[in-house]
Amino acid sequence: MFAGPLQALVDELGRLPGIGPKSAQRIAFHLLKVAPEDAMRLAEAVVAVKERITLCPRCFNVAEGDLCAICTDTRRDGTVLCVVEDPRDIVSVEKTQEFRGRYHVLHGALNPIEGVGPDQLRVKELLVRLDDESVTEIILCTNPNLEGEATAMYLARLLKPLGVTVTRIASGLPVGGDLEYADELTLGRALEGRREVDA
Amino acid sequence: MFAGPLQALVDELGRLPGIGPKSAQRIAFHLLKVAPEDAMRLAEAVVAVKERITLCPRCFNVAEGDLCAICTDTRRDGTVLCVVEDPRDIVSVEKTQEFRGRYHVLHGALNPIEGVGPDQLRVKELLVRLDDESVTEIILCTNPNLEGEATAMYLARLLKPLGVTVTRIASGLPVGGDLEYADELTLGRALEGRREVDA
Repeated sequence: MFAGPLQALVDELGRLPGIGPKSAQRIAFHLLKVAPEDAMRLAEAVVAVKERITLCPRCFNVAEGDLCAICTDTRRDGTVLCVVEDPRDIVSVEKTQEFRGRYHVLHGALNPIEGVGPDQLRVKELLVRLDDESVTEIILCTNPNLEGEATAMYLARLLKPLGVTVTRIASGLPVGGDLEYADELTLGRALEGRREVDA
Repeated sequence: MFAGPLQALVDELGRLPGIGPKSAQRIAFHLLKVAPEDAMRLAEAVVAVKERITLCPRCFNVAEGDLCAICTDTRRDGTVLCVVEDPRDIVSVEKTQEFRGRYHVLHGALNPIEGVGPDQLRVKELLVRLDDESVTEIILCTNPNLEGEATAMYLARLLKPLGVTVTRIASGLPVGGDLEYADELTLGRALEGRREVDA
């Protein structure tokens, strides 16, 4: 439709997640217009990520080179592991500034329909860490949806017999939320997880 | 926030139009996961566009090398020029299969607030074409919005004294549309532009 290389770029952009045909066109024409060095910076950033980013061999967070920044930080508490589905979830937890332990990234959640079982996740590697490291608590921080809950349940059953404390992040109303707009499942969980008020 | 090169890619992606911080993260992690050759194809497509795509020196459509595919096509009718704001608009007009003439791309529309006057558009080049080529009709195919209408009006006043037929694409209800949902401006234009029915 467009001149060869332009159409090729539109096609490649259209393969990215969340980019429809119109967005792909818009981005391609944007790149056509910007200064060559700006476009080159993008191309080089793609190449650099493929060449230099690896997974941390211990926690499977993204890393540059060997261990990730959190695993190499000796000030982090090695006795508490926060288990997440995705490296991006680490950023979310870090932002809370409530957690000073280490992480373990599963790279997905159990999903039998899509063929994701425990063998497709980094579960074996988690068990190895329990043997090697002095872990006393595991916080299951998978998403509070169907797959995340199933994964948390599976891991809890697997890990509890090994003598570690296994906890799950709380479900409930979001802070600043409104009872009127809460769905019944969330409100039910909030009631179930109620705590005595210190007064 | 993320390891160096990954954060750099997130930043570069976030600079693209229509890509927010969350989408930039999602795309960066997608590129981290795909086969290296898939990511390289994207990087190379960006480079190829900057190196090989130029503007057609006659109509300012995107081109590979010298004249664009439409200007080099001798079967196109050189007496009718369709004036559009953007090269992407050519694709839209071509899809209708209703037009066999040539194009002229203004690369924008008049917008005094943003400092876009006739000198920022390819207006002078259009006048040169009227001198050089055997143009008899100019179809003003700018967008039916404030800037596009102003541009069409400006061009009509400029071109009519030169002895060419100047036409404007019709405004009205979209085909398959519904009177109930038409805005009053569009419906007003549709009434104003009514045509006698051949029956």
